[in-house]
Amino acid sequence: MKVRNILGERFKERAFEIESQNLMTRGGYMKQVGNGIYSLFTPAKRIQNKIEQILREEMDAIDGQEVLFPVVMPASLWQQSGRFDSIGKELLRFKDRGGADMVLGMTHEEAAVQMAMNVAGTYQKYPFMIYQIQTKFRDEPRARGGLIRVREFTMKDAYSFHTTQEDLEAYYERAYCAYERVYARAGVPEVLAVKSDSGMMGGKISHEFMLLCDIGEDSIVLCPDCGFRANMEACDAFTENAADAAIEPLKEVFTGDAKTIAEVGALLHMPDEKTCKAVVYQRNADDSYVLIFVRGDKEVNETKLTNYLKAEVHPALDVENANLSAGNIGPVDLKTSATVLFDRSLVGATNLVCGANKPEYHLTGFTPSRDLSETAEYLDLCKAVEGGVCPNCKKHSLKVRRGIEVGNIFQLGRRYTEAMGMTYDAENGERRNPIMGCYGIGVGRLIASVCEAHHDEYGPIWPITIAPWQVEICALRIDDPNVREAAENLYAELENAGVEVLYDERPVSAGVMFSDADLLGAPVRVVISPKTLSRSAFELSARDKSFREDIAIDTAAETVQAKIRELIAAVNAKVPERL
Amino acid sequence: MKVRNILGERFKERAFEIESQNLMTRGGYMKQVGNGIYSLFTPAKRIQNKIEQILREEMDAIDGQEVLFPVVMPASLWQQSGRFDSIGKELLRFKDRGGADMVLGMTHEEAAVQMAMNVAGTYQKYPFMIYQIQTKFRDEPRARGGLIRVREFTMKDAYSFHTTQEDLEAYYERAYCAYERVYARAGVPEVLAVKSDSGMMGGKISHEFMLLCDIGEDSIVLCPDCGFRANMEACDAFTENAADAAIEPLKEVFTGDAKTIAEVGALLHMPDEKTCKAVVYQRNADDSYVLIFVRGDKEVNETKLTNYLKAEVHPALDVENANLSAGNIGPVDLKTSATVLFDRSLVGATNLVCGANKPEYHLTGFTPSRDLSETAEYLDLCKAVEGGVCPNCKKHSLKVRRGIEVGNIFQLGRRYTEAMGMTYDAENGERRNPIMGCYGIGVGRLIASVCEAHHDEYGPIWPITIAPWQVEICALRIDDPNVREAAENLYAELENAGVEVLYDERPVSAGVMFSDADLLGAPVRVVISPKTLSRSAFELSARDKSFREDIAIDTAAETVQAKIRELIAAVNAKVPERL
Repeated sequence: MKVRNILGERFKERAFEIESQNLMTRGGYMKQVGNGIYSLFTPAKRIQNKIEQILREEMDAIDGQEVLFPVVMPASLWQQSGRFDSIGKELLRFKDRGGADMVLGMTHEEAAVQMAMNVAGTYQKYPFMIYQIQTKFRDEPRARGGLIRVREFTMKDAYSFHTTQEDLEAYYERAYCAYERVYARAGVPEVLAVKSDSGMMGGKISHEFMLLCDIGEDSIVLCPDCGFRANMEACDAFTENAADAAIEPLKEVFTGDAKTIAEVGALLHMPDEKTCKAVVYQRNADDSYVLIFVRGDKEVNETKLTNYLKAEVHPALDVENANLSAGNIGPVDLKTSATVLFDRSLVGATNLVCGANKPEYHLTGFTPSRDLSETAEYLDLCKAVEGGVCPNCKKHSLKVRRGIEVGNIFQLGRRYTEAMGMTYDAENGERRNPIMGCYGIGVGRLIASVCEAHHDEYGPIWPITIAPWQVEICALRIDDPNVREAAENLYAELENAGVEVLYDERPVSAGVMFSDADLLGAPVRVVISPKTLSRSAFELSARDKSFREDIAIDTAAETVQAKIRELIAAVNAKVPERL
Repeated sequence: MKVRNILGERFKERAFEIESQNLMTRGGYMKQVGNGIYSLFTPAKRIQNKIEQILREEMDAIDGQEVLFPVVMPASLWQQSGRFDSIGKELLRFKDRGGADMVLGMTHEEAAVQMAMNVAGTYQKYPFMIYQIQTKFRDEPRARGGLIRVREFTMKDAYSFHTTQEDLEAYYERAYCAYERVYARAGVPEVLAVKSDSGMMGGKISHEFMLLCDIGEDSIVLCPDCGFRANMEACDAFTENAADAAIEPLKEVFTGDAKTIAEVGALLHMPDEKTCKAVVYQRNADDSYVLIFVRGDKEVNETKLTNYLKAEVHPALDVENANLSAGNIGPVDLKTSATVLFDRSLVGATNLVCGANKPEYHLTGFTPSRDLSETAEYLDLCKAVEGGVCPNCKKHSLKVRRGIEVGNIFQLGRRYTEAMGMTYDAENGERRNPIMGCYGIGVGRLIASVCEAHHDEYGPIWPITIAPWQVEICALRIDDPNVREAAENLYAELENAGVEVLYDERPVSAGVMFSDADLLGAPVRVVISPKTLSRSAFELSARDKSFREDIAIDTAAETVQAKIRELIAAVNAKVPERL
């Protein structure tokens, strides 16, 4: 393809906070149509097609059957599963011309069960996996980062069905491995699987695949010592408290206007970890209050809180309605209508400062084991922290990093098959609900993530396996007949050999041509100019600057193809074996 | 792939009026999710992938650039083009979580202009064509026929942009040829291009590609003598009237309760073509009346009427509000508030019966050239008829047939670029609106149409180029070790050679196995059984019954591949050259 024919200009702007969004916008990969809704230009669509092909091959290799579910579904399907009511506004609901309630598919568990129901009625049909690559819509409140967090996106979603938990677990391992192969084949073998919270999907065991990078929206907890990895949302938090030599009595102290942990700590010369903080939430459903006491240096993990309460919550807007004294709330002699919870960061702590439940006063000497009821239950409700205790090896080794989620796998269990009444005849004649797993990868987010991981200030550096074009020929001074002839010969020869070639023969300066080539990111570049011809050579170079060398003109096409094979082999060397 | 692993049972039912829907439902190709909304099982998805690949290759060959537009679009885009208001309920409109008006894409002219706007600002960028293969939603009031008329469907839609009408026309010819290639490659070279009405798309010249078959929803007018072809909606109608020797005076006759043409004709012994019929419509917008006089044997073509009025209409519910005498309406001494139109089937007619504008009376001797005003305008508002006059060669040669529309191409002109303000700098420095063409093919409808055209009572007969699998191996009596060994060897050998093989080794009867194979429709079948082995042979046969022969076991894999190549060559022989 000729560069002059590609629709889309190369832009100068760097308008966005996220570099992949800058580079892909400047490079003419995509254009915003609405909030979180993009059109993809040809370079991005070519990358997408390549990733889809990788996904198809890896899903087929684990016995997946490609199918297609609808984007628009009757609400009745989602009512059967219960998600029509339980999911918030991310699920876009509307009525069709006949007044029937419909939804836009954001995931397709319901559709997968609807498809498999009645056509997998006996145990002999199991296990099986069906997958699709299809447009999805999720009405995100905060679309951001170009293709990182959008409302409409293309997703590969897969659903497996099993008769036993063991069979699901064995299949889950194969899917896990297939995912590692997908990321490695897409040129990001550094993607990490981390333990995750299953959230609205139901089920227990799940993993997210994370590309670590500073602009990621997720916090990932890692232990470099033992290899433990989890999403912050799903990471058990441990806190060690060494008891003071002397346990002091409770004592009321005047603290005036000091309200925050920082203010009170400064006033009383106490570090944060010697304080007890009150954090107040309200349940979304009825605005009822939930009060959590945690050690002053800890933060509440809202996901853990939500999972414990089995209810969505938001930080309290005010606390007076719960008969609480804002800034002076404490666990001793507390009278409130709120649900009161204690985080296990308080276990073993002594001589803490806490609120006295009246304005301008706090207590010192608060020692939970003495001052709280013996039946008080201590829950894991806080976030893990940098340097904290690893849940696995118990060392103070935890690191916290940012990551972009580029895929996830879930052991769903029977949540959907029970709710929707899908059954099969077991070998012993019983009717049972099959056990499900589900497996998702967002294609556009993966594209943007690869760009985030592999770029320089001039543009994306696409891995050869997903690059929109493998090679770009830059013909400088196309008005020189020797340049034109040499360039067109090479272009024709490479195209005939099935190489994906981009050909730039515009009458523009070397600067413009190279900066456009940098934005389009072909991994291999061949420069043909009067200068290289005067050396009887073409110049072969890599987008990632790993090589630049003169090559012989006669054998240039073979040399380029050998270089492409070498780059492909380098990517494939990092792809794990299939399970 | 093994038949036992394919999700989906082969069903017995023949529940539907349309045979492709029966066969594809029975064969486990699709499952209804909602009204006009289907999930596709693996066999259908494999056919779809193959058709998509053919579309991609043919669109790339006419310099198309594959892109992707969104399914969900902001209403503002459609407001810019004016279609948000002009299109009816087929366009599904809803609000997102923020209350913004959105639509589901039913075509993507607006999105194409939005994409190309600002990135094709100078004449040097032209012409170009962008296309996508994407899910669309059209809220059809009457979904029917399985995949023939659905609400959600996958479509290839393409949009070309030009600086001159000549350039558009030249490109339109290339697209026309690419379409003929697509249908021929998909195994339906019999698809015909017919002149069509451009309807809501705007623009003037357009063609539909029709597969003639009795269950089609469109009426196609053909002239076997000169090759003229048009959709009934867009076919000029000509009527010849031979003047009677004597023109009679107008005379009022008592006709009592006789109201319809049939009743009045029977009473007065006049054939339909010697009557003048009144047909009354109302404009949808304000219910105002439109009265059309036509020769009694003709039918009004609502599309022509709508195009003339530039307004949507419906048959009148009552006529009293227009001061008309139902069943006795006539063109002489008529007093009405309705818009009155005359069809050109009345030109040259003499001595007709028509209503007398009062109950129980008609007139005889109505002769339009004498009895109507000299300024009366005669319009082309009627349908062409079987045996009617060909608009091209003027013979009484017309045939009327049913057809399924499997694609369309339009010369759109500047309708969208003007409305949305897309401009480019012409060579002379002027700012101009580019000229557009658009080109659509619905993938699912094409699949169903191929099935409609190529099936027998046992199932679809898929052309080799789009068949879900090229070959099916039927291993009868898999409990026989010789059968198992021979079948598995052939399966492995063919798979290794890249042949798409379906392998049935279920312990079922020959009857069940063959009837399932008929439903899955692989063009080539290899039967391996104790009986064939006793003849030292496999049995090779065609799904379309064109051959059945014993083949040598040693060279079976090569024989099968040669047969596949032969079938592919037969399809390709009917594919026209590229323009």
